[in-house]
Amino acid sequence: MELTQARAELLALQEKLSAYNHALGLLSYDGETTAPRGTAANRGHAMGILSEEVYKLSTGEETVSLLEFLDGKKDELTDRERRMVYLLLKDIRFMQKIPMAEYTEYQKLMVESQDVWVRAKETSDFALFEPYLTKVVEMTRRFAHYAAPDKDPYDYWLNEYEEGASKESCDAFFGRLRARLVPLIEAVQRRPQVDDACLHGDFPDGDQEALALYLMDLMGLDLDHVGLSTTEHPFTTSLGSHLDERITTHYHPDDWSSSMFSVIHEGGHALYDTGSAEDLAYTVLDGGVSMGIHESQSRFCENILARSKAFIRFLFPKLCEFFPGQFDRFTWEDVYKAVNRVQPSLIRTEADEVTYSLHVMIRYELEKQLMAGALAVHDLPAAWNRMYKEYLGVEVPDDRSGVLQDSHWSFGAIGYFPSYALGSAYGTQFLRKMKETVDVDEALSRGDFAPMNAWNREHIWKYGSSKSPREILSIALSGEAFDPDVYLDYLEAKVKDVYAL
Amino acid sequence: MELTQARAELLALQEKLSAYNHALGLLSYDGETTAPRGTAANRGHAMGILSEEVYKLSTGEETVSLLEFLDGKKDELTDRERRMVYLLLKDIRFMQKIPMAEYTEYQKLMVESQDVWVRAKETSDFALFEPYLTKVVEMTRRFAHYAAPDKDPYDYWLNEYEEGASKESCDAFFGRLRARLVPLIEAVQRRPQVDDACLHGDFPDGDQEALALYLMDLMGLDLDHVGLSTTEHPFTTSLGSHLDERITTHYHPDDWSSSMFSVIHEGGHALYDTGSAEDLAYTVLDGGVSMGIHESQSRFCENILARSKAFIRFLFPKLCEFFPGQFDRFTWEDVYKAVNRVQPSLIRTEADEVTYSLHVMIRYELEKQLMAGALAVHDLPAAWNRMYKEYLGVEVPDDRSGVLQDSHWSFGAIGYFPSYALGSAYGTQFLRKMKETVDVDEALSRGDFAPMNAWNREHIWKYGSSKSPREILSIALSGEAFDPDVYLDYLEAKVKDVYAL
Repeated sequence: MELTQARAELLALQEKLSAYNHALGLLSYDGETTAPRGTAANRGHAMGILSEEVYKLSTGEETVSLLEFLDGKKDELTDRERRMVYLLLKDIRFMQKIPMAEYTEYQKLMVESQDVWVRAKETSDFALFEPYLTKVVEMTRRFAHYAAPDKDPYDYWLNEYEEGASKESCDAFFGRLRARLVPLIEAVQRRPQVDDACLHGDFPDGDQEALALYLMDLMGLDLDHVGLSTTEHPFTTSLGSHLDERITTHYHPDDWSSSMFSVIHEGGHALYDTGSAEDLAYTVLDGGVSMGIHESQSRFCENILARSKAFIRFLFPKLCEFFPGQFDRFTWEDVYKAVNRVQPSLIRTEADEVTYSLHVMIRYELEKQLMAGALAVHDLPAAWNRMYKEYLGVEVPDDRSGVLQDSHWSFGAIGYFPSYALGSAYGTQFLRKMKETVDVDEALSRGDFAPMNAWNREHIWKYGSSKSPREILSIALSGEAFDPDVYLDYLEAKVKDVYAL
Repeated sequence: MELTQARAELLALQEKLSAYNHALGLLSYDGETTAPRGTAANRGHAMGILSEEVYKLSTGEETVSLLEFLDGKKDELTDRERRMVYLLLKDIRFMQKIPMAEYTEYQKLMVESQDVWVRAKETSDFALFEPYLTKVVEMTRRFAHYAAPDKDPYDYWLNEYEEGASKESCDAFFGRLRARLVPLIEAVQRRPQVDDACLHGDFPDGDQEALALYLMDLMGLDLDHVGLSTTEHPFTTSLGSHLDERITTHYHPDDWSSSMFSVIHEGGHALYDTGSAEDLAYTVLDGGVSMGIHESQSRFCENILARSKAFIRFLFPKLCEFFPGQFDRFTWEDVYKAVNRVQPSLIRTEADEVTYSLHVMIRYELEKQLMAGALAVHDLPAAWNRMYKEYLGVEVPDDRSGVLQDSHWSFGAIGYFPSYALGSAYGTQFLRKMKETVDVDEALSRGDFAPMNAWNREHIWKYGSSKSPREILSIALSGEAFDPDVYLDYLEAKVKDVYAL
């Protein structure tokens, strides 16, 4: 094969993959947003066939020999080409190490396991899910062993989800968090509770949607390329390339803030994806690189920018326009305090900024024990409930609000949770770095996201997945080491301000 | 090859095609309904790649040899299998007769031509479109010659769009229509005009949507499998199989009737598609068989059922509930007359039941002359305007409201229009047959579509495309010949009633 031809085929392969992934992504998005509710099986039919085509295309002989040819000519490739080949070969090499029968068994288990989890959560019946989760843990451990026989299985998966993460680094990270957050939360609880009456009232969907579109525009999202829909659980998805991004939200008629912060969170993911350099479109380098960096951007927008004093002061008169009469009894300070209320609770996705990472820490500790065989799946709910009591001081009334709340384990994502907390921490360190050149508070006081967007675009977004997460961190932080105390300092300052500690 | 294996491969091929068509259909539907407006190029990227896959799959060597093998064993196949092979081979055999270079040129022309038509319509600039339409007419004629060298080109295409149609049969059909409709419309115009004030007022989108969903349910559509969205121009599409059908409508805030009749029209298409026998799903026999039969069902629901006296009397109190206060000055008779008002006009898609077929007839006459070379594309707008004046008595103010109004010619669909009028006529003959066993007026007076749906399902819907249009007509009419006077009698009776002629 000629190198010139192989390079062209490398691009053609990725274009084809992006077309299939566009179709599969849209089928799934349509299922969540628009499709009539009885059409899942019909959609599954198409998705099954198209997924099989993607599998054949990604791992077929022709593809493997193309990628191996290019891998052999590494030195003649550009940085981008090298990374394309690396990312495309990564999955193939993983799969080559797994015995085919076990791989097929795993695929089947994933489908069943997710289905059973949905029913188990609905009926709050952990016993139903237990045999599936047991099998998931067992296979996850086994696959790690096939992939990296010399590595601890949980270390293998932590590093897969966030490059560079390990039990050692996570122990240190979560240990530090625990040490400072637990007393901080206790101190808050000794203070008078913040009144959040200003979040509640009567907020019609149409008005909330108008606010959502206003905020998307304000954040600098290009509404010609980023759409908004409603779903039960908010999410963000790219279709085909970063040129078509969709975010979703959920309107609670009696609480305007839930959709607002969902929109800004998902909008942060969308800013990151759509900020990829134009010429990354239709390649595997398009869009955000990892969960950790992704969450650093979404939670940066949601918490650091949108829950700031300067932004809430700017936004308050707008809120009064979007929801006439609803804020007559309140001031912008009431809103600022209410959206920053610290309140230990049961559900991770609804947790405040301060308690959030403890929810993640509990999942990390439990995963670590499960993967080490130190905790049996059967004993997981009791361990979960014990830790929620110990670290957050809350009683878990049932498994639906406890161990069954998140879907991750049902699709085999063990080792994924820590990136949520890591991303939150990265964001605060980016903020500190950004503040060296950007007057963030001044910009927020004018509702202007542009200066912060410009910084994030230059240091993070434009690279898409063309750099590894570690490289991105190094670029954005100019080589400064990751330091969780920056995150803790940020949270402490916020809490002191809100609670006058 | 073994016959058993070939049979299995025949089904697998169709399942695969249905998955690709599901994806392509959804990409297009998403573009019309939900996608942000700047995403067309991104979507086009995916659609181009997936369409190429469909082309390769449909016409590749493996497929051709499979189908030819099965075609050689015709006698051992079931009726359904024979029809599957026939339909799948039809397009391949057509393409085999076209020189590859011309086929590619045609594909390219179609893309450009549709694009230019959109701009030409926007700016009412026929000169912009003229060179493309000239080329379309020329290539359409040439392709007919390749496909059937001994046949008149227009006859070839008429029969392609509606099996059995020819210039001879259409001349007779439209001649009969002209002879009775022109004087009927003249007679109406001598009568006092119907007041349609009851159609106008203030009708919020939300209330119109509630009416739409009520009507869909009333019609017997299964809302678990049929979805409703809004688009500029209403349409119906099946995704993957008849198990996921989408209809769209458009809400005019000052006219409730526009969306209502769109919903019932598109709902009629959806009833037909979703009425396919369950086991036709994922085969080429799934869903409606031809444009003519399809329009017979959509226009049956929209006009024959929903504009009837019995149904409007039933519906009136519901309308008063959906739009409180808007009908205080009116009676059900006012609504009945208003929705049956006869008013020669410029736009086919907005025409009333009586003048509708004359719009189609004009297109038929013009296509006939274009294909015969008796009319140059350059002279088309003048000829169009002359015929609108002659048959409908209206002056065409610009080409946007005249010759550029429909998209059909821009995508090469010459010979397609007559099926709209034929479908309307079929519907009235189905009605006469149906009335032998079904008390249609009594059912409509209770808003009950079930007895008519049962008849249509039994005689038409369940066959999907497993019978040819001619076979469907023969089954539904128990062998009775097609008789346009049934249609004309129906229209005359309606007009006499509304206008007290």
